[in-house]
Amino acid sequence: MTALRDLKVIGFDADDTLWSNEPFFVETEKKFCALLKNHFIEKELKEVLYKMELENLELYGYGVKGFMLSMIETAVKVSKTEIPKELIAGIINLGKEMLEKPIELLNGIENVLNTLNGKYRLIIATRGDLLDQERKLRKSGISRYFHHIEIMSDKKEKNYLALLERLNIEPKHFLMIGNSFKSDILPVLNIGGLAAYVPFHVIWEHDRVANESSESNERLLRIKEISEILNYIDPN
Amino acid sequence: MTALRDLKVIGFDADDTLWSNEPFFVETEKKFCALLKNHFIEKELKEVLYKMELENLELYGYGVKGFMLSMIETAVKVSKTEIPKELIAGIINLGKEMLEKPIELLNGIENVLNTLNGKYRLIIATRGDLLDQERKLRKSGISRYFHHIEIMSDKKEKNYLALLERLNIEPKHFLMIGNSFKSDILPVLNIGGLAAYVPFHVIWEHDRVANESSESNERLLRIKEISEILNYIDPN
Repeated sequence: MTALRDLKVIGFDADDTLWSNEPFFVETEKKFCALLKNHFIEKELKEVLYKMELENLELYGYGVKGFMLSMIETAVKVSKTEIPKELIAGIINLGKEMLEKPIELLNGIENVLNTLNGKYRLIIATRGDLLDQERKLRKSGISRYFHHIEIMSDKKEKNYLALLERLNIEPKHFLMIGNSFKSDILPVLNIGGLAAYVPFHVIWEHDRVANESSESNERLLRIKEISEILNYIDPN
Repeated sequence: MTALRDLKVIGFDADDTLWSNEPFFVETEKKFCALLKNHFIEKELKEVLYKMELENLELYGYGVKGFMLSMIETAVKVSKTEIPKELIAGIINLGKEMLEKPIELLNGIENVLNTLNGKYRLIIATRGDLLDQERKLRKSGISRYFHHIEIMSDKKEKNYLALLERLNIEPKHFLMIGNSFKSDILPVLNIGGLAAYVPFHVIWEHDRVANESSESNERLLRIKEISEILNYIDPN
């Protein structure tokens, strides 16, 4: 990809690009449904929860704490008048467990970072909660490779434009690597940046997008594993 | 203050420096106690809540969502076996109200920003939740004055050092203005930066510090209202 010759800064999405994340949400959702199994069947409850998450998204933003609050609000919604205190305590514990989960780096990450380190400025560009993402990075053991974590309240075109302004670079200098076509890839392509799409086996419903497979762009790389990026980027 | 001659970047704390914030927490705490008044007297309940907040601080960090979760966990803790769903719903509503509060700028802010704008790089350096702080800034109508919001997971010396590295400036180029001696003033002085202390009439227990009045430093300004800063900084 000739567009890569101007590359200066590489932004990595964090959750499900550097380390596994969405599977923990799916697992927690299952446990949440189990807590409420006397009241609701799993499929219906998951729908109520998902709707609640979307309703609260503008107010809470992304991350575990908002998810915890949406689970609690869902439990309130489907309960009659009284809620067993164990139920609410159980939901809070599910959330705290998520926040304390160990970090599982995805395949090949460390080799990629090690190879690109020094040649390019590497940053993490993620949504979610600053404290939580900083903690995950610390636990991951790969923080030494990154110049900093950029926490974005959203990943739309305007957010990436603001990021580039802060980095003081042009779009052609920036490559974003991520697993969400909607949040990591499309907006970056649309503002003239470069993008490498590395799908993950689980994706949050809200991050799905229709034109994922049809989009064609000379500034877009499609790879199956993150290590393939080294076939395109010159580390020397 | 001669130290001000090297000034390049001014960092403003947000909550209770630019706009009123802690009074809303105090007000919400009162309403929370009222929701539980059949179970507990206010003073005892406030102590349980404060202890819960501190216990959860490392995991949740600062901000309204963590406060909501701590209120809910407190309600669980002081309840026997069942909790009325209205109680949990009421707590969630209290939190949502906080997130949707209009912004009340403190006295003189707009004049200060307007005067310093263009001559210095103005940023917001705040703890708390990115989305929430961005929303407050948008509602405040003063976002045009700021280069960006710097969200810090904590406001300790190492966090300010990282901030200066990102800003690519030396400590002597940086002035921090804020209402918390512990979080806005001391760590900045300790790393060689400049600080202007503007106390606010309410302060969170956790942000109190003992040596507030005795600390003496030629890089420290003590002012009563933010507009007094213009007596020290040359806007030309």
